[in-house]
Amino acid sequence: MSILVVGSVAVDNIETPAGSRSRILGGACTYFATAASLYAQVRMVGVVGQDFPQEHVRFLQGRNIDLRGLQVVEGETFSWSGRYGDDLGDAETLDTRLNVFADFQPTLPEDYRRTPYVFLANIDPDLQLHVLSQIESPRLTALDSMNFWMGSKREALTRAMSLVDVVLLNEAEVIQYAGEPNLIAATQAILDLGPKALVVKRGRYGALLVTHGESIGERFFLTPAYPLARVVDPTGAGDTFAAGFMGYLAQTGDLTVGGLRRAVVHGTLVASFTVQDFSIDALRNLALADVVTRYDDFHLLTHYDDGPCPGQERLQRSIMDNQP
Amino acid sequence: MSILVVGSVAVDNIETPAGSRSRILGGACTYFATAASLYAQVRMVGVVGQDFPQEHVRFLQGRNIDLRGLQVVEGETFSWSGRYGDDLGDAETLDTRLNVFADFQPTLPEDYRRTPYVFLANIDPDLQLHVLSQIESPRLTALDSMNFWMGSKREALTRAMSLVDVVLLNEAEVIQYAGEPNLIAATQAILDLGPKALVVKRGRYGALLVTHGESIGERFFLTPAYPLARVVDPTGAGDTFAAGFMGYLAQTGDLTVGGLRRAVVHGTLVASFTVQDFSIDALRNLALADVVTRYDDFHLLTHYDDGPCPGQERLQRSIMDNQP
Repeated sequence: MSILVVGSVAVDNIETPAGSRSRILGGACTYFATAASLYAQVRMVGVVGQDFPQEHVRFLQGRNIDLRGLQVVEGETFSWSGRYGDDLGDAETLDTRLNVFADFQPTLPEDYRRTPYVFLANIDPDLQLHVLSQIESPRLTALDSMNFWMGSKREALTRAMSLVDVVLLNEAEVIQYAGEPNLIAATQAILDLGPKALVVKRGRYGALLVTHGESIGERFFLTPAYPLARVVDPTGAGDTFAAGFMGYLAQTGDLTVGGLRRAVVHGTLVASFTVQDFSIDALRNLALADVVTRYDDFHLLTHYDDGPCPGQERLQRSIMDNQP
Repeated sequence: MSILVVGSVAVDNIETPAGSRSRILGGACTYFATAASLYAQVRMVGVVGQDFPQEHVRFLQGRNIDLRGLQVVEGETFSWSGRYGDDLGDAETLDTRLNVFADFQPTLPEDYRRTPYVFLANIDPDLQLHVLSQIESPRLTALDSMNFWMGSKREALTRAMSLVDVVLLNEAEVIQYAGEPNLIAATQAILDLGPKALVVKRGRYGALLVTHGESIGERFFLTPAYPLARVVDPTGAGDTFAAGFMGYLAQTGDLTVGGLRRAVVHGTLVASFTVQDFSIDALRNLALADVVTRYDDFHLLTHYDDGPCPGQERLQRSIMDNQP
């Protein structure tokens, strides 16, 4: 099943303790599409300037990514410059040049409208709503966002979150949106808006999935991240997390609670590969078999009990059957 | 099997967003002993002043805790005052009065020396070494420490860590000791000292266990923390984590890698109860059955895959068989 992604395509300038890179391929849409193409056919909706290097276009085409939704317009491509400190936590933004991205109006080729899986990467929530309104009977829709829109476009973001099936945010964003310092309590404020599931990305600490369900064990899924003794560049971790998550769902069609949990694990594993090199470089030669090998490692490193898991049959219900 | 614990006994003054409490029962030794008494017989080694309230003594005796190692000396009991912010992260210390704890010389009653499980809570590493030297053929020894000793008593701490079987530290301490910002890389520096296992406490993010082993999945165990929508007072979380960990091992005698992993889960669950009230109050009416109920919840909320776990038989070897 194919996946539509709308978001930024960028050229980045990155400094990390491992080194610096100039004008490398970046942007949420690019990261997502590259990683999700391991699992399914991807359709990109984005915009670049005429300066966008042809080698990047050829690379994306080589991943069998449908680029008919990638507009090439007069001007320069969106560019972001950022620096990471020794702890590889949040980046310090050194420069943001929106360029052609400032006037981005996502338009979907006719046949894109019936794409079954839709991921709205972090862009203006009004544009996310605009894309959603063009989609016809999707199987699963999801969105990402960021702190910036929680202040400036809170109403549109709230509406967008109420319309999609899955919301993906990082921990600080959930806390900020809810105005509640306890993450677990804060997740409820977002789930109450209407989505079937909320995925909270916690970086090196893994992820949290919240679905509707009766008991705590059924409602929450918590997973650590894959342990890495060296991280080169955290850029794109969240976007490729989303790609592993959506990719697994699109490939398997499994929308049970258990399926979403495995999708979260795929997300955290795909992200763990991404951060081992700059840009999408670690994904260039990555095969799905490599992710599955790491999945087996991960299974062993989260394993602690051979006994039966009480209530596991409740993880086999579809998230689409359970309304808030 | 019984457990010996040496550490601080204190009266605390605590401020958290949930409220304030004055002169409540505190100290690592107290927290540990109270929680570990759910699992096994506990022998306390510590010191208090003559002001130490008799109700606390009666409470500890009521848990069947052996207090013959608790010295009562002239002067006032160690007192700590701290405040937690909205995020309930690290406490700000408002006041520390060592009082009788300043001259603490742990002396073990004769029969304490043959206690099979020994936990050295966070005290001067020279005192930890002094206690270790008095112990005769223990089954398992473990220690906790803190950032303060990494600067002022690094040599003694290094020696103590090299002599015990298990080191328990929090994430920031491991990074500080190793001088390495990547936690996973930093764990190696401590494991190289000689302990059979290192447990890294990560607060709301759970815990990490590192043992000697060939593959990543065998060497590392990562677990999230139990999700709590309300935390009242984080004081004692680390000490009661250690108690659940040591208590499970003492009760089951299971020193396999799998046993240590289950012990880590018990640690994180016991800590999750502790932080739901001030002081040891949440532990007063807690039964081991309550921990087991939460263990079942936890099993379900970390569950994502029903398939066989490749390599799980390797978790059945004893940590005592594997040298670094």
